[in-house]
Amino acid sequence: MLKKDQFYLPDGVIYLDGNSLGPLPKAAVSQLNKTVEDEWGAMLIKGWNDAGWMKKPSIVGDKIGKLLGCAPGTTVVGDTLSIKVYQALAAALAMRLERKIVLSDNGNFPSDLYIADGLLRTLKQGHELRVVAPEDVYENITEDVAVVMLTQVDYRTGRMHDMQALTKAAHDVGAISIWDLAHSAGAVPVDMTACNAEFAVGCTYKYLNGGPGAPGFIYTRPDIAEDAEPSLAGWLGHAEPFAFDLEYRPARGIERMRVGTPPILQLAALETALAVWDDVSIHDVRAKSIALSELFIREVEANCPQLKLISPRNADERGSQVSFAFEHGYPAMQALIDAGVIGDFRAPDTMRFGFTPLYLDESDVKRAVEILTDIMKNETWKQPRFQKKGDVT
Amino acid sequence: MLKKDQFYLPDGVIYLDGNSLGPLPKAAVSQLNKTVEDEWGAMLIKGWNDAGWMKKPSIVGDKIGKLLGCAPGTTVVGDTLSIKVYQALAAALAMRLERKIVLSDNGNFPSDLYIADGLLRTLKQGHELRVVAPEDVYENITEDVAVVMLTQVDYRTGRMHDMQALTKAAHDVGAISIWDLAHSAGAVPVDMTACNAEFAVGCTYKYLNGGPGAPGFIYTRPDIAEDAEPSLAGWLGHAEPFAFDLEYRPARGIERMRVGTPPILQLAALETALAVWDDVSIHDVRAKSIALSELFIREVEANCPQLKLISPRNADERGSQVSFAFEHGYPAMQALIDAGVIGDFRAPDTMRFGFTPLYLDESDVKRAVEILTDIMKNETWKQPRFQKKGDVT
Repeated sequence: MLKKDQFYLPDGVIYLDGNSLGPLPKAAVSQLNKTVEDEWGAMLIKGWNDAGWMKKPSIVGDKIGKLLGCAPGTTVVGDTLSIKVYQALAAALAMRLERKIVLSDNGNFPSDLYIADGLLRTLKQGHELRVVAPEDVYENITEDVAVVMLTQVDYRTGRMHDMQALTKAAHDVGAISIWDLAHSAGAVPVDMTACNAEFAVGCTYKYLNGGPGAPGFIYTRPDIAEDAEPSLAGWLGHAEPFAFDLEYRPARGIERMRVGTPPILQLAALETALAVWDDVSIHDVRAKSIALSELFIREVEANCPQLKLISPRNADERGSQVSFAFEHGYPAMQALIDAGVIGDFRAPDTMRFGFTPLYLDESDVKRAVEILTDIMKNETWKQPRFQKKGDVT
Repeated sequence: MLKKDQFYLPDGVIYLDGNSLGPLPKAAVSQLNKTVEDEWGAMLIKGWNDAGWMKKPSIVGDKIGKLLGCAPGTTVVGDTLSIKVYQALAAALAMRLERKIVLSDNGNFPSDLYIADGLLRTLKQGHELRVVAPEDVYENITEDVAVVMLTQVDYRTGRMHDMQALTKAAHDVGAISIWDLAHSAGAVPVDMTACNAEFAVGCTYKYLNGGPGAPGFIYTRPDIAEDAEPSLAGWLGHAEPFAFDLEYRPARGIERMRVGTPPILQLAALETALAVWDDVSIHDVRAKSIALSELFIREVEANCPQLKLISPRNADERGSQVSFAFEHGYPAMQALIDAGVIGDFRAPDTMRFGFTPLYLDESDVKRAVEILTDIMKNETWKQPRFQKKGDVT
């Protein structure tokens, strides 16, 4: 299963941040050259047909959908995750006009909440965005809730919601369910068909290794796809984009969730990155991810008593990342990165580490903990150069 | 001024479709390799700071803004043109809550009308999208109009609106003015500062040669930038994206019009493509474009009586394209493309030709007309292979 030879990883780097930006698949370099020179360069405008550019959002969408238990023809790629959240939420609210509450939790990625807030402000229809603690979501799924909008895996702690149970709870009260799978796709097994939620969205630059700014994706459950009213009614979501009608008529099914011209260069990188999954089982990846995460937790707790685990200890309740709290987490992470172990920091005190079995093995994890242990023992993080706050991502 | 050596143009091709998709700037190939290998590959997540990815939407935005008479810090790049239309229109409507009419014309690109329609349906606030003939726009700018939303250059005929006069007419009745500059940027001189419109949007894959799926751009007039309420409230439009606050606080000025993670590969190509403008004056480009267009019209009218000019004959009223109507325009354009002259076809009968002095000269234009003349004289377009309708772009 280990596909380390298919990724470009700089010498001396142990990359524990694939949950933020996946590394470069080697094949993406030649594919991008091909797309740029042989398609854009040589075909010019004809690339839209001759190189199949126009169909890429659906083709690539299906490749992602396959990893998430979505039926073919139910997933498209495009725009960014934020835009896809907006589309899903706007369509969901239009299906429950009589209800005014959008329920989410404070473990959701803030941007999802911002997008919801922006949509509700724009609507001016008296909606309320109700944000509760993750453990309080169940009891807040009441009959006045229009939409339950959650991210499966908490970006800070890796805590994982039970998608199937929460979706059922939403449906039991007649609410629509939207899942953000940004930290799930390519990391944990997801079965959207079994989950039965109406919408799912996600990004592709984390565990799917699509590259910086790779597009988002959206899934609509096929039986309600024709009921989804497009808020972002772009020409490529039109039933006949090239008829240039003045009136918008939504395309069939998920195609109506396409908006503008697809980002062909990003899609070329993403499609190449997805090829690595052709002979990889997400279940094997998950088993290995748990093994690596457990090893990391065990070793860090044995060697770095200053760090406090804030991820769930039970692997079944955790995504493919492990987070520790440390008062001096910011400079400690800078020192760690300086020593070649790349994780990331999230305010106020979270040191975050992603485990990606496609290109990480036990020896990487052990070596990373050795380096972390040295930094903690020697208090390397106290060096002024690590204290200086720069931009953070 | 001719920069032909800086573009990759296939042998035997005369490219009259740069108004749809600009050709590949040669420098984009090496820049993309650099971005992919030296940045994504070698820097991984650190690219967001170390390679300056995070600031690219503003840096590239300013480079486009400079071509359009926008002050620095008033233009950002991202998403697609459709999304930028939505953002501008939603912000504009929020500034004129008491008015319910959005005025546009049927020469607008249909997608802009679709986006407006989708927004108004989503709002459910009783708005009306009023679409009139281009020549009737003036008289329909009345005191109940909230927003006048127009595209400067008609994608079919090249007919050009008087931006300054129409903006003044909008302001005279207290309406907001939004301009789509998709067919203007890099083609005709635009001075947004003098025009005084509140918003402008556009795409970058036409005359700016940013590549297939290159992102859109948006300009907000600086004095009202802080009044623009973001409908698409994404995390990169937040005042402090990396504080991960649960509450959205819009960033200052135009930065609030950023939404999600920027498409770094597309931006690399686009930024490279914009470098060609460093030592080119848009006024020189315009003068040459007019000369090439006039030559084309003259030669076509002299040699192809079957084709009827549908673009304005007065160059001052025309963008950088020329369109002819021909009953059999579809197969005629297929035959022309087959012979190496790439223009495009727009239903029902429009043969469209773009003139781009960066990489086209008089000899290209003359040769193109010779080939077109042969096709018309020999009725080559009657061959069955040209009649077959394929996908069109």
